[in-house]
Amino acid sequence: MSIFDAPGHKTEPSSQVAFAGNSLDRRSEHRDENCLGDALASPHARAFMFGDGRAFLKKAGDGFEILHKVDELQQFDPDIENAVLLGFADGEAPRIAVHVRLDPEELPDSIKAIDHRSIYIQGLIKGDALGQMAQGASLIAWVRSHAHCGRCGSQTRAMAGGYRRECPECGHMLFPRTDPVVIMLAIDSENDRCLLGRSPHFPPGMYSCLAGFLEPGETIEDAVRRETHEEAGIHIGQVRYHASQPWPMPHTLMIGCYGEAASTKIAIDNREIEDCRWFNREEAAELVSRQTGLSDLSSPPPGAIAHHLIRDWLAHGR
Amino acid sequence: MSIFDAPGHKTEPSSQVAFAGNSLDRRSEHRDENCLGDALASPHARAFMFGDGRAFLKKAGDGFEILHKVDELQQFDPDIENAVLLGFADGEAPRIAVHVRLDPEELPDSIKAIDHRSIYIQGLIKGDALGQMAQGASLIAWVRSHAHCGRCGSQTRAMAGGYRRECPECGHMLFPRTDPVVIMLAIDSENDRCLLGRSPHFPPGMYSCLAGFLEPGETIEDAVRRETHEEAGIHIGQVRYHASQPWPMPHTLMIGCYGEAASTKIAIDNREIEDCRWFNREEAAELVSRQTGLSDLSSPPPGAIAHHLIRDWLAHGR
Repeated sequence: MSIFDAPGHKTEPSSQVAFAGNSLDRRSEHRDENCLGDALASPHARAFMFGDGRAFLKKAGDGFEILHKVDELQQFDPDIENAVLLGFADGEAPRIAVHVRLDPEELPDSIKAIDHRSIYIQGLIKGDALGQMAQGASLIAWVRSHAHCGRCGSQTRAMAGGYRRECPECGHMLFPRTDPVVIMLAIDSENDRCLLGRSPHFPPGMYSCLAGFLEPGETIEDAVRRETHEEAGIHIGQVRYHASQPWPMPHTLMIGCYGEAASTKIAIDNREIEDCRWFNREEAAELVSRQTGLSDLSSPPPGAIAHHLIRDWLAHGR
Repeated sequence: MSIFDAPGHKTEPSSQVAFAGNSLDRRSEHRDENCLGDALASPHARAFMFGDGRAFLKKAGDGFEILHKVDELQQFDPDIENAVLLGFADGEAPRIAVHVRLDPEELPDSIKAIDHRSIYIQGLIKGDALGQMAQGASLIAWVRSHAHCGRCGSQTRAMAGGYRRECPECGHMLFPRTDPVVIMLAIDSENDRCLLGRSPHFPPGMYSCLAGFLEPGETIEDAVRRETHEEAGIHIGQVRYHASQPWPMPHTLMIGCYGEAASTKIAIDNREIEDCRWFNREEAAELVSRQTGLSDLSSPPPGAIAHHLIRDWLAHGR
């Protein structure tokens, strides 16, 4: 039985968001110095290709395919030394992430380099493959930003199938990075309404949950309280975790929570958001029924954890 | 009203763990190029001093004091350029974290350099100050391991009160790092027992929850399932978040969860743990009643999130 076949978890809120459906067997305990070479030599190996925040997709019928055979990589100038073994599909089929250096201008017509956000928003790749792409994109972004040692500046080298890097000069060990972000829906229970805001870089009319990076030395709950107060001036009492989501822009973990509002008077921090208001149940329901750009007001798309926080509050009270 | 005065949250499990009680006002939106200089000039400023994974404590009566006046720093060769403004206590009293370069051998008798874990285990510093120390220790560890740019190897420089670093050569921006770790208590509901293991580096007789780093592209729930299966061979169905804890060794966020066991036959990975077994309620209660080293079997100390996961399962069923 795969760990993803255990009962119960398919109904968890975290299993419903985009990028979450990744069933690769990571075999994290078996990452040794030969695992990447062995994987590349397997006839079942397939690779994700990334370059500068974009994944390389192959046209396939009306849609796209994101997996490439290993012998197809060569024409794209792949950085094999810094590739990462993500895990195994269907028992023995290795999945590898690799950065390629070919200028996107020189791509053949059959290949498109598309940024991760557009791949998700436009639904070009879905389900399990989208989750695997998120894993690969996050790891390649980490590899690229850790080519040198943060302690001494020397060039680092990949170990353990790309999942660890080491500085040959000072011995510093580097591990993959995941940045926790809290994203939260504040609920004013007395008036049965929720708090949504919009950042200046949102599409016109879109409102979403407030969010921000969790800081060192903070609990999840305290980060929810701090961010909500900083951005909207609202005090939060009890916090309840709801769901989490991998977010590969570049290597984030979204931690979705509900927060019980202990005050209701909004005071916006204009450096962070341009508007913030309370939405009652009817208004919130209208918001999530409209996706981005279709009408005056809209919410993030169905795969977004913000969408689920709003929708699940509407469905279950909170 | 401070954000920590809102009703309800004092009863949250996350408020009960060590390192969690940090009531500094971080003012994260107001970190500009002058904030650290202004803070250092304040007569109310106090500093935490760190060196190589240890905090510098001052003897005070029968115990220790962790806060130092700014003019006391000079004799320890402080790295003021890379200091970090943590936030403000009691409205206007800045709290600063600074790395000092004085050889611990040369410390005056009144000062002790003690590693963060011992400070917590021995209860030398408690409550709010311990949480502030965690914030400072994590940030200084991050500063020290990001003195050079990971992209190009050049020396980076501090910005925004130390909360951001920038590479003057390539423009790469660096942000504080927090590593999410899942720590979980697997529950076999049918037999009313929980799963605990011990790592070879634990004190003799100590058992605790299984734990491991969340990986890029993973939800919290999937990380709980993967780690439990890798370490103990146990399949987990539904996962429930319980509490989180800042853990400054060096900059970790512990995410504590319960997992419903979907299998019961243990298969240990000996590279990770040396023993793992099911504990029924009586056995688990005996375990948490004994602290480390007092008898044959013991659990982590009361401040540890593992202790709370076990104790709260005993108290509330799960």
